[in-house]
Amino acid sequence: MSRWQPDARQRLERAALELFTEQGFAATTVPEITARAGLTTRTFFRHFADKREVLFAGEEEVPGLVARMMAEAPAAMEPVPLIVDGLKTLAETRFEGRRQEIREKREIIRSDESLRERNLRKGAGLRDAVLAGFVERGVETLTATLLAEISVTLLNVSLNEWLDQDADRPFFDIILETLESLQTTFSIRRD
Amino acid sequence: MSRWQPDARQRLERAALELFTEQGFAATTVPEITARAGLTTRTFFRHFADKREVLFAGEEEVPGLVARMMAEAPAAMEPVPLIVDGLKTLAETRFEGRRQEIREKREIIRSDESLRERNLRKGAGLRDAVLAGFVERGVETLTATLLAEISVTLLNVSLNEWLDQDADRPFFDIILETLESLQTTFSIRRD
Repeated sequence: MSRWQPDARQRLERAALELFTEQGFAATTVPEITARAGLTTRTFFRHFADKREVLFAGEEEVPGLVARMMAEAPAAMEPVPLIVDGLKTLAETRFEGRRQEIREKREIIRSDESLRERNLRKGAGLRDAVLAGFVERGVETLTATLLAEISVTLLNVSLNEWLDQDADRPFFDIILETLESLQTTFSIRRD
Repeated sequence: MSRWQPDARQRLERAALELFTEQGFAATTVPEITARAGLTTRTFFRHFADKREVLFAGEEEVPGLVARMMAEAPAAMEPVPLIVDGLKTLAETRFEGRRQEIREKREIIRSDESLRERNLRKGAGLRDAVLAGFVERGVETLTATLLAEISVTLLNVSLNEWLDQDADRPFFDIILETLESLQTTFSIRRD
Protein backbone atom coordinates (compact mmCIF):
# COMPACT_ATOMS: atom_id res chain seq x y z
CA MET A 1 0.00 0.00 0.00
CA SER A 2 1.55 3.28 -1.03
CA ARG A 3 1.35 5.99 1.55
CA TRP A 4 0.01 9.50 0.76
CA GLN A 5 2.37 11.30 -1.59
CA PRO A 6 2.04 15.05 -1.13
CA ASP A 7 4.08 15.82 -4.24
CA ALA A 8 2.69 13.02 -6.44
CA ARG A 9 1.15 15.32 -9.00
CA GLN A 10 4.33 17.31 -9.50
CA ARG A 11 6.44 14.16 -9.72
CA LEU A 12 4.11 12.73 -12.38
CA GLU A 13 4.22 15.98 -14.37
CA ARG A 14 8.01 16.11 -14.18
CA ALA A 15 8.39 12.45 -15.23
CA ALA A 16 5.92 12.87 -18.10
CA LEU A 17 7.66 15.99 -19.46
CA GLU A 18 11.06 14.27 -19.27
CA LEU A 19 9.80 11.23 -21.15
CA PHE A 20 7.85 13.22 -23.77
CA THR A 21 11.01 15.26 -24.42
CA GLU A 22 13.37 12.25 -24.47
CA GLN A 23 11.36 9.80 -26.57
CA GLY A 24 8.38 11.72 -27.97
CA PHE A 25 4.79 12.15 -26.85
CA ALA A 26 3.30 9.33 -28.95
CA ALA A 27 5.90 6.79 -27.84
CA THR A 28 5.42 7.40 -24.11
CA THR A 29 3.02 5.26 -22.04
CA VAL A 30 1.38 5.93 -18.69
CA PRO A 31 3.21 2.95 -17.04
CA GLU A 32 6.53 4.44 -18.17
CA ILE A 33 5.57 7.75 -16.60
CA THR A 34 4.57 6.17 -13.30
CA ALA A 35 7.69 3.97 -13.25
CA ARG A 36 9.88 7.05 -13.68
CA ALA A 37 7.96 8.88 -10.95
CA GLY A 38 8.05 5.84 -8.62
CA LEU A 39 4.24 5.85 -8.32
CA THR A 40 1.35 3.60 -9.38
CA THR A 41 -0.86 4.02 -12.47
CA ARG A 42 -3.77 4.26 -10.02
CA THR A 43 -2.19 7.40 -8.58
CA PHE A 44 -1.67 8.73 -12.12
CA PHE A 45 -5.34 8.38 -12.98
CA ARG A 46 -6.35 10.05 -9.72
CA HIS A 47 -4.64 13.19 -11.07
CA PHE A 48 -4.99 13.02 -14.88
CA ALA A 49 -7.56 11.63 -17.34
CA ASP A 50 -4.80 10.54 -19.74
CA LYS A 51 -1.20 11.36 -20.71
CA ARG A 52 -2.31 14.24 -22.93
CA GLU A 53 -3.98 16.03 -20.03
CA VAL A 54 -0.68 16.24 -18.13
CA LEU A 55 0.21 18.97 -20.63
CA PHE A 56 -3.00 20.91 -20.00
CA ALA A 57 -3.32 20.36 -16.25
CA GLY A 58 -4.98 23.20 -14.35
CA GLU A 59 -6.30 24.78 -17.55
CA GLU A 60 -9.92 24.02 -16.60
CA GLU A 61 -9.60 26.49 -13.71
CA VAL A 62 -8.81 29.44 -15.98
CA PRO A 63 -12.30 30.25 -17.38
CA GLY A 64 -13.76 30.26 -13.83
CA LEU A 65 -10.91 32.44 -12.57
CA VAL A 66 -11.45 34.89 -15.45
CA ALA A 67 -15.22 34.97 -14.87
CA ARG A 68 -14.70 35.74 -11.17
CA MET A 69 -12.09 38.46 -11.77
CA MET A 70 -14.35 40.14 -14.33
CA ALA A 71 -17.46 39.94 -12.14
CA GLU A 72 -15.63 41.36 -9.12
CA ALA A 73 -13.89 44.26 -10.89
CA PRO A 74 -15.41 47.73 -10.25
CA ALA A 75 -18.26 48.47 -12.66
CA ALA A 76 -16.59 51.73 -13.75
CA MET A 77 -13.35 50.00 -14.76
CA GLU A 78 -12.64 50.37 -18.48
CA PRO A 79 -12.10 47.24 -20.61
CA VAL A 80 -8.38 47.68 -21.36
CA PRO A 81 -7.27 48.26 -17.71
CA LEU A 82 -9.44 45.26 -16.81
CA ILE A 83 -7.67 43.09 -19.40
CA VAL A 84 -4.29 44.35 -18.14
CA ASP A 85 -5.20 43.51 -14.53
CA GLY A 86 -6.44 40.07 -15.53
CA LEU A 87 -3.34 39.30 -17.57
CA LYS A 88 -1.16 40.49 -14.66
CA THR A 89 -2.89 38.07 -12.31
CA LEU A 90 -2.61 35.20 -14.80
CA ALA A 91 1.05 36.01 -15.50
CA GLU A 92 2.03 36.15 -11.84
CA THR A 93 0.03 33.20 -10.54
CA ARG A 94 0.22 30.77 -13.45
CA PHE A 95 3.31 31.56 -15.52
CA GLU A 96 6.02 33.36 -13.52
CA GLY A 97 8.72 31.00 -12.22
CA ARG A 98 7.67 28.20 -14.59
CA ARG A 99 9.36 29.40 -17.77
CA GLN A 100 11.52 26.34 -18.40
CA GLU A 101 8.65 23.92 -17.84
CA ILE A 102 6.25 25.91 -20.07
CA ARG A 103 8.91 26.05 -22.76
CA GLU A 104 9.28 22.26 -22.65
CA LYS A 105 5.51 21.86 -22.88
CA ARG A 106 5.40 24.18 -25.88
CA GLU A 107 8.01 22.07 -27.70
CA ILE A 108 6.05 18.88 -27.02
CA ILE A 109 2.74 20.46 -28.15
CA ARG A 110 4.35 21.75 -31.36
CA SER A 111 5.59 18.25 -32.19
CA ASP A 112 2.13 16.65 -32.39
CA GLU A 113 -0.88 17.61 -34.53
CA SER A 114 -3.51 16.41 -32.00
CA LEU A 115 -1.78 18.38 -29.23
CA ARG A 116 -1.78 21.50 -31.39
CA GLU A 117 -5.52 21.15 -31.95
CA ARG A 118 -6.06 20.55 -28.23
CA ASN A 119 -4.09 23.73 -27.57
CA LEU A 120 -6.35 25.73 -29.93
CA ARG A 121 -9.34 24.57 -27.86
CA LYS A 122 -7.56 25.94 -24.77
CA GLY A 123 -7.31 29.37 -26.40
CA ALA A 124 -10.98 29.19 -27.39
CA GLY A 125 -11.97 28.44 -23.77
CA LEU A 126 -10.19 31.56 -22.53
CA ARG A 127 -11.67 33.67 -25.33
CA ASP A 128 -15.22 32.50 -24.57
CA ALA A 129 -14.78 33.30 -20.85
CA VAL A 130 -13.54 36.85 -21.59
CA LEU A 131 -16.34 37.39 -24.14
CA ALA A 132 -19.00 36.26 -21.64
CA GLY A 133 -17.43 38.43 -18.92
CA PHE A 134 -17.59 41.58 -21.05
CA VAL A 135 -21.15 40.87 -22.22
CA GLU A 136 -22.10 40.46 -18.52
CA ARG A 137 -20.54 43.87 -17.89
CA GLY A 138 -22.81 45.44 -20.52
CA VAL A 139 -20.29 45.76 -23.37
CA GLU A 140 -21.93 45.32 -26.79
CA THR A 141 -21.23 42.03 -28.53
CA LEU A 142 -18.99 43.29 -31.36
CA THR A 143 -16.68 45.14 -28.95
CA ALA A 144 -16.76 42.28 -26.45
CA THR A 145 -15.76 39.84 -29.19
CA LEU A 146 -12.85 42.06 -30.24
CA LEU A 147 -11.72 42.46 -26.63
CA ALA A 148 -11.84 38.71 -26.10
CA GLU A 149 -9.94 37.89 -29.30
CA ILE A 150 -7.32 40.49 -28.54
CA SER A 151 -6.88 39.33 -24.93
CA VAL A 152 -6.00 35.87 -26.22
CA THR A 153 -3.73 37.34 -28.91
CA LEU A 154 -1.93 39.49 -26.30
CA LEU A 155 -1.43 36.48 -24.05
CA ASN A 156 -0.25 34.13 -26.82
CA VAL A 157 2.04 36.57 -28.64
CA SER A 158 3.60 37.71 -25.32
CA LEU A 159 3.95 34.12 -24.15
CA ASN A 160 6.00 33.15 -27.20
CA GLU A 161 8.12 36.27 -26.78
CA TRP A 162 8.69 35.52 -23.07
CA LEU A 163 9.65 31.92 -23.82
CA ASP A 164 11.96 32.85 -26.73
CA GLN A 165 13.92 35.68 -25.07
CA ASP A 166 17.37 34.97 -23.68
CA ALA A 167 17.07 37.10 -20.53
CA ASP A 168 14.57 35.97 -17.92
CA ARG A 169 12.41 39.10 -17.83
CA PRO A 170 9.05 39.17 -15.99
CA PHE A 171 6.23 37.88 -18.21
CA PHE A 172 3.99 40.81 -17.31
CA ASP A 173 6.60 43.34 -18.56
CA ILE A 174 6.46 41.66 -21.94
CA ILE A 175 2.65 41.68 -21.94
CA LEU A 176 2.75 45.47 -21.36
CA GLU A 177 5.23 45.90 -24.21
CA THR A 178 3.03 43.86 -26.53
CA LEU A 179 0.01 45.96 -25.60
CA GLU A 180 1.97 49.16 -26.23
CA SER A 181 3.12 47.82 -29.56
CA LEU A 182 -0.51 47.07 -30.44
CA GLN A 183 -1.66 50.51 -29.31
CA THR A 184 1.12 52.30 -31.18
CA THR A 185 0.63 50.31 -34.36
CA PHE A 186 -3.14 50.74 -34.46
CA SER A 187 -3.25 54.38 -33.40
CA ILE A 188 -1.74 55.31 -36.79
CA ARG A 189 -4.55 56.97 -38.72
CA ARG A 190 -5.57 55.59 -42.07
CA ASP A 191 -4.63 57.83 -45.00
CA MET B 1 -20.23 11.46 -73.26
CA SER B 2 -20.98 14.62 -71.36
CA ARG B 3 -20.15 17.79 -73.21
CA TRP B 4 -18.11 20.63 -71.66
CA GLN B 5 -20.09 22.22 -68.83
CA PRO B 6 -18.97 25.82 -68.36
CA ASP B 7 -20.88 26.19 -65.09
CA ALA B 8 -20.14 22.71 -63.68
CA ARG B 9 -18.22 23.94 -60.67
CA GLN B 10 -20.95 26.34 -59.61
CA ARG B 11 -23.66 23.73 -60.12
CA LEU B 12 -21.73 21.24 -57.97
CA GLU B 13 -21.23 23.83 -55.22
CA ARG B 14 -24.91 24.78 -55.27
CA ALA B 15 -26.04 21.11 -55.17
CA ALA B 16 -23.61 20.29 -52.34
CA LEU B 17 -24.71 23.27 -50.20
CA GLU B 18 -28.36 22.38 -50.71
CA LEU B 19 -27.82 18.77 -49.69
CA PHE B 20 -25.56 19.60 -46.71
CA THR B 21 -28.25 22.01 -45.47
CA GLU B 22 -31.17 19.64 -46.11
CA GLN B 23 -29.76 16.39 -44.76
CA GLY B 24 -26.49 17.25 -43.00
CA PHE B 25 -22.85 17.20 -44.09
CA ALA B 26 -22.02 13.70 -42.79
CA ALA B 27 -25.06 12.08 -44.44
CA THR B 28 -24.37 13.52 -47.91
CA THR B 29 -22.41 11.53 -50.51
CA VAL B 30 -20.59 12.68 -53.65
CA PRO B 31 -22.95 10.62 -55.94
CA GLU B 32 -25.91 12.42 -54.37
CA ILE B 33 -24.27 15.77 -55.11
CA THR B 34 -23.53 14.88 -58.73
CA ALA B 35 -27.04 13.45 -59.24
CA ARG B 36 -28.56 16.69 -57.97
CA ALA B 37 -26.26 18.73 -60.23
CA GLY B 38 -26.89 16.46 -63.23
CA LEU B 39 -23.16 15.77 -63.63
CA THR B 40 -20.81 12.80 -63.26
CA THR B 41 -18.63 11.97 -60.23
CA ARG B 42 -15.68 12.22 -62.61
CA THR B 43 -16.57 15.87 -63.17
CA PHE B 44 -16.87 16.35 -59.40
CA PHE B 45 -13.36 15.06 -58.75
CA ARG B 46 -11.97 17.25 -61.51
CA HIS B 47 -13.05 20.22 -59.38
CA PHE B 48 -12.82 19.04 -55.73
CA ALA B 49 -10.65 16.58 -53.78
CA ASP B 50 -13.63 15.51 -51.63
CA LYS B 51 -17.01 16.78 -50.42
CA ARG B 52 -15.39 18.73 -47.56
CA GLU B 53 -13.32 20.81 -49.96
CA VAL B 54 -16.46 22.14 -51.66
CA LEU B 55 -16.84 24.29 -48.53
CA PHE B 56 -13.28 25.62 -48.74
CA ALA B 57 -12.98 25.99 -52.51
CA GLY B 58 -10.74 28.80 -53.68
CA GLU B 59 -9.20 29.25 -50.23
CA GLU B 60 -5.79 28.03 -51.42
CA GLU B 61 -5.52 31.14 -53.60
CA VAL B 62 -5.75 33.53 -50.65
CA PRO B 63 -2.21 33.26 -49.18
CA GLY B 64 -0.68 33.84 -52.63
CA LEU B 65 -3.01 36.78 -53.24
CA VAL B 66 -2.06 38.29 -49.86
CA ALA B 67 1.66 37.75 -50.49
CA ARG B 68 1.39 39.50 -53.88
CA MET B 69 -0.62 42.45 -52.53
CA MET B 70 1.88 42.96 -49.71
CA ALA B 71 4.93 42.68 -51.96
CA GLU B 72 3.51 45.15 -54.49
CA ALA B 73 2.36 47.81 -52.01
CA PRO B 74 4.56 50.95 -51.82
CA ALA B 75 7.43 50.48 -49.37
CA ALA B 76 6.42 53.62 -47.45
CA MET B 77 2.87 52.40 -46.84
CA GLU B 78 2.16 51.97 -43.10
CA PRO B 79 0.94 48.58 -41.82
CA VAL B 80 -2.63 49.55 -40.88
CA PRO B 81 -3.50 51.22 -44.23
CA LEU B 82 -1.97 48.18 -45.92
CA ILE B 83 -4.20 45.86 -43.90
CA VAL B 84 -7.23 48.02 -44.72
CA ASP B 85 -6.41 47.95 -48.45
CA GLY B 86 -5.91 44.19 -48.35
CA LEU B 87 -9.17 43.58 -46.50
CA LYS B 88 -10.97 45.86 -48.97
CA THR B 89 -9.70 43.81 -51.90
CA LEU B 90 -10.63 40.53 -50.19
CA ALA B 91 -14.07 41.86 -49.20
CA GLU B 92 -14.90 43.10 -52.69
CA THR B 93 -13.50 40.24 -54.73
CA ARG B 94 -14.25 37.24 -52.53
CA PHE B 95 -17.18 38.11 -50.24
CA GLU B 96 -19.41 40.85 -51.66
CA GLY B 97 -22.50 39.49 -53.43
CA ARG B 98 -22.10 36.03 -51.87
CA ARG B 99 -23.61 36.74 -48.44
CA GLN B 100 -26.36 34.11 -48.54
CA GLU B 101 -24.02 31.38 -49.76
CA ILE B 102 -21.32 32.22 -47.17
CA ARG B 103 -23.97 32.23 -44.45
CA GLU B 104 -25.10 28.74 -45.50
CA LYS B 105 -21.48 27.55 -45.47
CA ARG B 106 -20.99 28.97 -41.98
CA GLU B 107 -24.01 27.04 -40.70
CA ILE B 108 -22.72 23.80 -42.20
CA ILE B 109 -19.20 24.35 -40.80
CA ARG B 110 -20.60 25.10 -37.33
CA SER B 111 -22.53 21.81 -37.37
CA ASP B 112 -19.48 19.55 -37.66
CA GLU B 113 -16.38 19.31 -35.45
CA SER B 114 -13.99 18.26 -38.25
CA LEU B 115 -15.21 21.18 -40.38
CA ARG B 116 -14.64 23.60 -37.52
CA GLU B 117 -11.06 22.37 -37.18
CA ARG B 118 -10.56 22.62 -40.95
CA ASN B 119 -11.84 26.19 -40.72
CA LEU B 120 -9.29 27.06 -38.02
CA ARG B 121 -6.54 25.86 -40.38
CA LYS B 122 -7.93 28.28 -42.98
CA GLY B 123 -7.51 31.19 -40.52
CA ALA B 124 -3.98 30.03 -39.71
CA GLY B 125 -3.07 30.02 -43.43
CA LEU B 126 -4.15 33.64 -43.81
CA ARG B 127 -2.35 34.66 -40.61
CA ASP B 128 0.91 33.02 -41.74
CA ALA B 129 0.74 34.77 -45.11
CA VAL B 130 0.23 38.20 -43.48
CA LEU B 131 3.01 37.52 -40.96
CA ALA B 132 5.45 36.52 -43.73
CA GLY B 133 4.42 39.58 -45.77
CA PHE B 134 5.18 42.00 -42.93
CA VAL B 135 8.48 40.31 -42.07
CA GLU B 136 9.42 40.66 -45.78
CA ARG B 137 8.59 44.37 -45.51
CA GLY B 138 11.06 44.72 -42.63
CA VAL B 139 8.59 44.84 -39.71
CA GLU B 140 10.02 43.25 -36.56
CA THR B 141 8.60 39.84 -35.67
CA LEU B 142 6.60 40.79 -32.55
CA THR B 143 4.77 43.60 -34.37
CA ALA B 144 4.36 41.50 -37.52
CA THR B 145 2.81 38.71 -35.44
CA LEU B 146 0.38 41.13 -33.79
CA LEU B 147 -0.55 42.64 -37.16
CA ALA B 148 -1.17 39.19 -38.61
CA GLU B 149 -3.29 38.01 -35.66
CA ILE B 150 -5.32 41.19 -35.69
CA SER B 151 -5.87 41.07 -39.46
CA VAL B 152 -7.47 37.64 -39.04
CA THR B 153 -9.48 38.84 -36.02
CA LEU B 154 -10.73 41.88 -37.96
CA LEU B 155 -11.78 39.70 -40.88
CA ASN B 156 -13.47 37.02 -38.75
CA VAL B 157 -15.28 39.35 -36.33
CA SER B 158 -16.47 41.55 -39.21
CA LEU B 159 -17.52 38.52 -41.23
CA ASN B 160 -19.81 37.26 -38.47
CA GLU B 161 -21.24 40.75 -38.04
CA TRP B 162 -21.85 41.07 -41.79
CA LEU B 163 -23.54 37.66 -41.95
CA ASP B 164 -25.68 38.29 -38.84
CA GLN B 165 -27.00 41.77 -39.68
CA ASP B 166 -30.48 42.15 -41.14
CA ALA B 167 -29.65 44.88 -43.65
CA ASP B 168 -27.36 43.97 -46.53
CA ARG B 169 -24.60 46.52 -45.90
CA PRO B 170 -21.27 46.35 -47.75
CA PHE B 171 -18.82 44.02 -45.99
CA PHE B 172 -16.02 46.56 -46.20
CA ASP B 173 -18.10 49.17 -44.30
CA ILE B 174 -18.39 46.72 -41.43
CA ILE B 175 -14.66 45.97 -41.53
CA LEU B 176 -13.98 49.72 -41.16
CA GLU B 177 -16.41 49.92 -38.21
CA THR B 178 -14.71 46.97 -36.53
CA LEU B 179 -11.30 48.58 -37.00
CA GLU B 180 -12.59 51.85 -35.54
CA SER B 181 -14.07 50.00 -32.60
CA LEU B 182 -10.70 48.33 -32.04
CA GLN B 183 -8.84 51.63 -32.30
CA THR B 184 -11.26 53.43 -29.97
CA THR B 185 -11.26 50.65 -27.40
CA PHE B 186 -7.48 50.29 -27.29
CA SER B 187 -6.61 53.98 -27.43
CA ILE B 188 -7.93 54.32 -23.85
CA ARG B 189 -4.88 54.86 -21.68
CA ARG B 190 -4.20 52.51 -18.79
CA ASP B 191 -4.66 54.09 -15.35
